[in-house]
Amino acid sequence: MPDSDNTVSTSSNAASGRLAVPPVACPGDSLAQVATPSLVLDLDAFDANVMRMASAAAARGVAVRPHAKAHKCVTIARAQMAAGAVGICCQKLTEAIPFVNAGIGSIHISNEFVGEARVALAVAMASRVSLSVCVDDVRQVAPLGKAAQRAGVRIAVLPEVDVGQGRCGVDSTDAVGELIDAIDHYEGLRFGGLQAYHGSAQHVDGWDARRDTARLAADRAAAYVRFLAARGIACPVVTGGGTGTAEFDIESGVYTEIQPGSYVFLDGHYGSLEWRDDWRFRHGLFLASTVMSTARAGLIVCDAGLKSVATDSGLPRFWSSQQAGQPYYRTASDEHGVLELASPDEDGAPWLGEPILLVPGHCDPTVNLYDRYVAVRHGRVEALWPIEARGLSQ
Amino acid sequence: MPDSDNTVSTSSNAASGRLAVPPVACPGDSLAQVATPSLVLDLDAFDANVMRMASAAAARGVAVRPHAKAHKCVTIARAQMAAGAVGICCQKLTEAIPFVNAGIGSIHISNEFVGEARVALAVAMASRVSLSVCVDDVRQVAPLGKAAQRAGVRIAVLPEVDVGQGRCGVDSTDAVGELIDAIDHYEGLRFGGLQAYHGSAQHVDGWDARRDTARLAADRAAAYVRFLAARGIACPVVTGGGTGTAEFDIESGVYTEIQPGSYVFLDGHYGSLEWRDDWRFRHGLFLASTVMSTARAGLIVCDAGLKSVATDSGLPRFWSSQQAGQPYYRTASDEHGVLELASPDEDGAPWLGEPILLVPGHCDPTVNLYDRYVAVRHGRVEALWPIEARGLSQ
Repeated sequence: MPDSDNTVSTSSNAASGRLAVPPVACPGDSLAQVATPSLVLDLDAFDANVMRMASAAAARGVAVRPHAKAHKCVTIARAQMAAGAVGICCQKLTEAIPFVNAGIGSIHISNEFVGEARVALAVAMASRVSLSVCVDDVRQVAPLGKAAQRAGVRIAVLPEVDVGQGRCGVDSTDAVGELIDAIDHYEGLRFGGLQAYHGSAQHVDGWDARRDTARLAADRAAAYVRFLAARGIACPVVTGGGTGTAEFDIESGVYTEIQPGSYVFLDGHYGSLEWRDDWRFRHGLFLASTVMSTARAGLIVCDAGLKSVATDSGLPRFWSSQQAGQPYYRTASDEHGVLELASPDEDGAPWLGEPILLVPGHCDPTVNLYDRYVAVRHGRVEALWPIEARGLSQ
Repeated sequence: MPDSDNTVSTSSNAASGRLAVPPVACPGDSLAQVATPSLVLDLDAFDANVMRMASAAAARGVAVRPHAKAHKCVTIARAQMAAGAVGICCQKLTEAIPFVNAGIGSIHISNEFVGEARVALAVAMASRVSLSVCVDDVRQVAPLGKAAQRAGVRIAVLPEVDVGQGRCGVDSTDAVGELIDAIDHYEGLRFGGLQAYHGSAQHVDGWDARRDTARLAADRAAAYVRFLAARGIACPVVTGGGTGTAEFDIESGVYTEIQPGSYVFLDGHYGSLEWRDDWRFRHGLFLASTVMSTARAGLIVCDAGLKSVATDSGLPRFWSSQQAGQPYYRTASDEHGVLELASPDEDGAPWLGEPILLVPGHCDPTVNLYDRYVAVRHGRVEALWPIEARGLSQ
């Protein structure tokens, strides 16, 4: 959207001019001045989260390759690289384009893809960055191999093995062997290791149960590594793991690399899980919203609904330092959020116009609704960080 | 995102150049050539839906003011205006900006708003178009009245009355009277009628129950009109109603204007309701997706997940002319959709790379994920229609 011209003319002389979309915030603004709904990033929490993951993995000699699908933002990727990340993951090829253009030198597409256009894009990327991709079918290998060879590039290809998710990935050593044979057939490809991600393991609530699920995933990955070793094939990388299982994955002795994404934000769902020691990351991502109607006793209505927050992993939560007596976000419609007050008789009138903060249930699809983060430190806007890969799902 | 440069260079000579995001489609492409996931609009269905609503309302002398929050697209608004719409609704002020700039002459903000920045934007709009807005608190009236007076513009203000939704809107004649008194206090404002929208009535499944709910809403609105008449106040407009209740609202004798949005698309949720006669609109909005993994027996995995479709009103549905034996969309993760095949033993391998169409459960927040419609007629891409108001929720 055109937002480079930040003025909204209110003079009737300018009535024939185009109206510009006002900026959501300017550096130096207070939180209360931010246009709502907006996506707010608490920089102190963000910095602490980035460092926490980086130092924990470094202490065990495990590489961090953060997942950019969570943040879709070049500024965040650069902060992760500065903290020692070996590169980033992207989930789709177009999602990677802004990061390629920004000079992030190592990108792993942690997902399968098919079709000529995507193969052409992958090859174009491989001429610019160190690119790795995933496969779980020999029919994905041949077109990529031919195109890479024609273009004179080399792409690292990682067979995806199913370690418990039951979604993508092969689930037999025979199938992994076939994929490696197919990869070896092309000069433009090389076997890059194994993709062994267990998505649903990330979201297991109890700490013990999550540890056990993560261990099972690591055991399954280890079995594939042993199979390859028995065939004389070194497995340079075993990559997987996310925010929920990182603490187990880095201790596993199996994963050489982890792919956490949400840890930079800690969304409402992850915040609801059981954590131990200092593995609970800090809530860093918020929705700034405004109460715009208080006509009903016991309710307040804010301006953040389904177009401002993803609800697949639960409704957003009112953010407050106080635990009790706070409004409860009950219903989302397209552009309204209805919050219940502590008592059904309470008069909501004092809330009209009040700015509030909400914690989104699920960060990834929420971030994908916005064009920028309002980066805030100590209640003041420090910068606007563009979400360059917003909407790039092809 | 920069997509004006449509080339993806695959030559290594150009390795230092920026990678452009490939276009999702070009006019003349077949449906199978469209990059996925994409939002596809079937123009025959769209045209029929626009005409159906326009002619039904015209036959009863009721104005149509379609809700642009459903489509967020100037091209669609123009098609609705060409079919006789008196103007459009928007749900947020920034959402209206592209329509103001495109010359849509009459815009109703069917929602409350607060704050200086929004008041300034409303006044700037009122110098360009015929603007009406909603209020449900006298504290929303004064700032608008003062700003309008200073700028020498006049804004029509419609008190919102709660006709059953229990969200925004006042629910007493006294409160309506107070709002009108407040409006009359400012030269820059005029009483524009009543906003009487019942959102949840739209989604009542059974036809009889939906009719009864709509009648109750109309009865409530009528009581306010009678109250005003008894005070000698003419109510120029009673506006409300949507896709689900339009057939009842235009027969009510109460509504002078309806605000339907989803009818141009008919999403999966609306498609699941009971309809009578020819009031079932045609499915016009689809997600083009591709099967990118078939590693599990009984399952296929497509590339359309939570970032490509809103799931608040149900998961997307596989679209096929056949009723039985089709894949069933079972689980959405960020960038994956898992579909079950008819039998858990069925080999999904033949599906790899196949293009599929899905019907989204809820059109409004799904549209808000995309930058353009791929407008298709008879299986060929006719045009790309920008979604100018995508993301404009402030």
